[in-house]
Order: sequence, then C-alpha cells, then structure tokens
Amino acid sequence: MHFADTLIARLRELSHPLCAGIDPHLGLVPPLFRRGTMEATDPETPAAVEELVGAFLDRLPGRVAIVKPQIAFFEQLGAAGVAMLERVVVAARERELLVLLDAKRGDIASTAEGYARAYLEPGAGAECDAITLNPYLGRDTLEPFVLRAESFGRGLFVLVKTSNPGSGDLQDLELKDGPVYEVVAGGLAQLAERLVGPATGWSSLGLVVGGIYPEQQERVRERAPKSLFLVPGYGAQGGGAADALRGFVAGPSGLEGGIVNSSRGLMFPEAAARAEDAASWERAVDGAIDRAAGELGEAVAR
Amino acid sequence: MHFADTLIARLRELSHPLCAGIDPHLGLVPPLFRRGTMEATDPETPAAVEELVGAFLDRLPGRVAIVKPQIAFFEQLGAAGVAMLERVVVAARERELLVLLDAKRGDIASTAEGYARAYLEPGAGAECDAITLNPYLGRDTLEPFVLRAESFGRGLFVLVKTSNPGSGDLQDLELKDGPVYEVVAGGLAQLAERLVGPATGWSSLGLVVGGIYPEQQERVRERAPKSLFLVPGYGAQGGGAADALRGFVAGPSGLEGGIVNSSRGLMFPEAAARAEDAASWERAVDGAIDRAAGELGEAVAR
Repeated sequence: MHFADTLIARLRELSHPLCAGIDPHLGLVPPLFRRGTMEATDPETPAAVEELVGAFLDRLPGRVAIVKPQIAFFEQLGAAGVAMLERVVVAARERELLVLLDAKRGDIASTAEGYARAYLEPGAGAECDAITLNPYLGRDTLEPFVLRAESFGRGLFVLVKTSNPGSGDLQDLELKDGPVYEVVAGGLAQLAERLVGPATGWSSLGLVVGGIYPEQQERVRERAPKSLFLVPGYGAQGGGAADALRGFVAGPSGLEGGIVNSSRGLMFPEAAARAEDAASWERAVDGAIDRAAGELGEAVAR
Repeated sequence: MHFADTLIARLRELSHPLCAGIDPHLGLVPPLFRRGTMEATDPETPAAVEELVGAFLDRLPGRVAIVKPQIAFFEQLGAAGVAMLERVVVAARERELLVLLDAKRGDIASTAEGYARAYLEPGAGAECDAITLNPYLGRDTLEPFVLRAESFGRGLFVLVKTSNPGSGDLQDLELKDGPVYEVVAGGLAQLAERLVGPATGWSSLGLVVGGIYPEQQERVRERAPKSLFLVPGYGAQGGGAADALRGFVAGPSGLEGGIVNSSRGLMFPEAAARAEDAASWERAVDGAIDRAAGELGEAVAR
C-alpha cells in the first residue's frame, strides 16, 4: 500500500475530499450521550465519549475516505482515553476508513523513533495510516517517520501554515526567500520526492495548510507540487469550500491534491445537540456530513 | 506554589542545576531488568520499564530537584505505557521531585486546552509541574498553558534552539531581527513577564536552548533575561558543563537561571549495563548522578 495513491483512489471514487475530524470536545457531547459530569477526571466520561465516537464512525463508511482523530481530546482523559483511542483506531480501520492521527509530534530523532513506533508501525496499539508532524526541530527529526512511510506505506502531514489566529507569529515572518511557512514547505520537497506514489504521482509527504488562507495555499502549492494538503478549518473555523481548494489542481475527475477537514461541523451539528433519540441524532449527523461532502464535491467538480 | 521560585530554591539548596531525564530506551534496558523480548509490543515490556524507572527514581531524592520524563518513550508502549507514566509521575512527586514532562506539545488553542488539562491540571492522571511546548503555531496556542501556569503555579519550557544536528534547518534561518530562534525567544518576553516569581524574579515561562550551542545561549539570554533555560544535550549528546551554563547568570550562591538535563548518562551509565545485582546497579547509577551533579556544581560555583 502507498498512502497517497490509496487516499487519492478513494477520494476519486467518492468525488469529494472531505475528511471527518474526530475532536470529542467534552462540553459539546450531546445530551443523548452524556453520563456523569463529563469532566475529564470523571471515570464515566471515557465511556460516554467512546459511545459518541463509535456512533459517529458508524455514519462514515461510504461517506468519507478518511478520519482524523485529534489525540489531545483522548490524552485529556488520561490512560483510559489513550486505551479508548486505540479501540477507536481499530474500529475506524475495520470500517475501511483511513486514519490520520492529528498528533503534531516533533522531537529529536532518537525520541521521534518512539512516536513513529507508537503510531506508524504494524502491531502498534494505535496503528494509524498517517500522522501530523511539527517541523520546528528540523528535517532530521522527520526521518524516523519517513522511514515508516517508506516501509509501511504511511502518510505524513507536516505543519506549514496553520489555521489559528496567531499562526503568523512565526509562520509569516519574512526570510530572504519568502515567509517562513513557504520556506518550510520548499525545504520538504526532497523528502516529498522520496514518497511519490507510482499510480498518481502524489507524495505521501503532505503539508498542513489552513483553509482560511487561500492565497497562502497557492504559494505553497508552487513550492510543493507533489504534496497532498491537509486543509483544516473548514466549517467551524470559518473557511468556505472554494477557499479550501485553492491549493488543489486539475485531476482526472476534478480538482484534487488533498483533503479538507471538518470536525465540529460533522460530529456536533446543531440539530444533533437537540436529538432526543438515536435515529434523529443519526439523521442530523448524516445531513451534516452529506452537506459538507456535497458542497466540496460541487467545488472540486467545477 | 510558583514553579520558578520553587525550582530555584531547591537548586540553591542542592548547589547544582542537574535535571534527571527519564528516557527509557528499550534497547538500553540493562540485563538486570530485562523481561521477554523488550519489543514495544511485548506485553512484558511495560513492567520491565516500570521496574527500571522505579529503581532510578529511588536514587534521586536529595540528589536532584527535578526529573524530565520523555513522554514518547511511554507512548511507544501504547495505553499501558501511558498508564505507567501516570504511576511514574505520582511516584516522582511522592519523592518530592519536581516533574517536567517533555512532551513538546503544540496545537491550536481549543486543542491545546486538552493537552493543558491532561498534564497541568490538579487531579489529572499525569499531573506534572511543568511541560515542554513547541512554538511553531504561535503565541495564542501557548495561552491555555500560561493560564494553568498562572492558576496552578506550573512551569512551561518553550523550544527555542534544540540540540539535534538539523535544528538549524528552521531555527537558524535569518530574519530581519536575527535568527528565528532568537526572534522566537524575544517574542515570548511579554508572556514571561506574566509568570515572574515574587521570590526570585525568575519566570515560569522558560526556554529550551541546547547545551551544544553555547554562543546561542548567550544571545537568547540577552533577549530573555527572566526565563529559565532547560539545557538538554548534557552528557550523551556531547555538551560539557561550562558550555551548558553559558546562559546562566550570577545568583546569590553561584550561577543560576535554568536546569541542565542528562538522560542516558544517568539512567544508562556503562557500569550499570554490566551490573549483576541491584546493589552494583545502584552504585553505578549513584556514581553517574553524583559525577554529573559534581561537575555542574563546580561549574556554577566558579
């Protein structure tokens, strides 16, 4: 398996690039699923979260190709949360969903080995298809992840331009050759070459480029023509479909070149918060997913 | 409690700034503690690691003020490893050691909340005194951690200049006002002001500055006069005592202004690898700690 080739093939089948984020904010868990206080330290909380996430996963097969669990929401529940993440990852892969772990890890190489082993090796408790990484420590620290990508067909998405208000503090500072985020993207081109897929020409070394920065996406695409983009910030964080796709390029069946993530908008749509039974919760979530997928599907088809 | 004030008071008592890193590399676990294959996926591995780490913690009271567990080495063991980390953190705090979790987390604010809750809140499974953070996403993403530092007296160490060979890829790039790492350090000065301790004037917003870069330490110290430094890379990664202290300044009882970490050198000294019984392992580890503490103690006293 090659991550980028597999992902692109599934996205072409579905005709949209929607990625379903799994960010179980405790305060947003709908009444239907709540138990106890829903504090992070309440022993009843992990079971409530697991039930919600499991019900959400059941809505996804045939609707999206890939899910992105945010590990912080599991870590906040302690070891019980991490054990739950392991079960969630298994459940997602059993449903033939690709799993991109949003962990944003970054550490010196001997330590990065530990993270690569934890999330990208066959047989790991939370064995994922791809992971997000932080570039601050330098390219040598990405190497343990690149090796797993080569050996086991995994995918990597390195932070370039993030979608938060303060992302410019460091990422937008001007260097001789352009802003930091562009230089980071350009500096990864050689690593990206090592992970190019034979079927599609897309690389499994992807980049994270926030959807609320459409011009920045175009500039990153120039520097990184083969890297898939993970575009966060679609929906709840304010970006629209056309803006989210500014780094995409023409493919055999419409625009392609990445995935567009929505988290809160899919797992916590307003109508789902009011649902009084499982069937109406399912309808609310199905509706939210289908609307987002439809909107993105139309935008890539144009 | 105020993290920087408490830490500085304990360092003054001990007269050296040594921090004991807890990086349980599976391949380095000495024969005395090994069980099964020592692969990350072997169910016997966590117990072997826990026994080693517990024996190591027992050597530390009265010898060092602070320990730095590297979370990747626990995460690589899956949920069982995270459960073990929780017990290790409790055991360390019971021994009146301060615990600095080396997690290098960084994410958008709503997600960073999860990490802050996981490691800095009272009652969290792995409740630590301080944590390392990554600055790539911008200052707004540090805010959830700063709030916990203010409310619960925690400490933060933000990556500035790391000790790995590739740290220059991004950190050394030249901006108008100096290299990236210096600008990052300078950009944190206001946040550092918010966390200044009443007793010592040192801030609980610290910085990570690699010990193999002595000149860079001096330059960062100019930009960040109140921030404690976490200096990694002492011992195994090649830095000497004088170089590690180049960002320290004169205090009431010698040079002060940070902690100097050694991991492999203390937990895995050569003599401990050959130990055939607990007593000789203890002697080897005690010797390694006392040598490092003595060397640093002499260097700060000069």
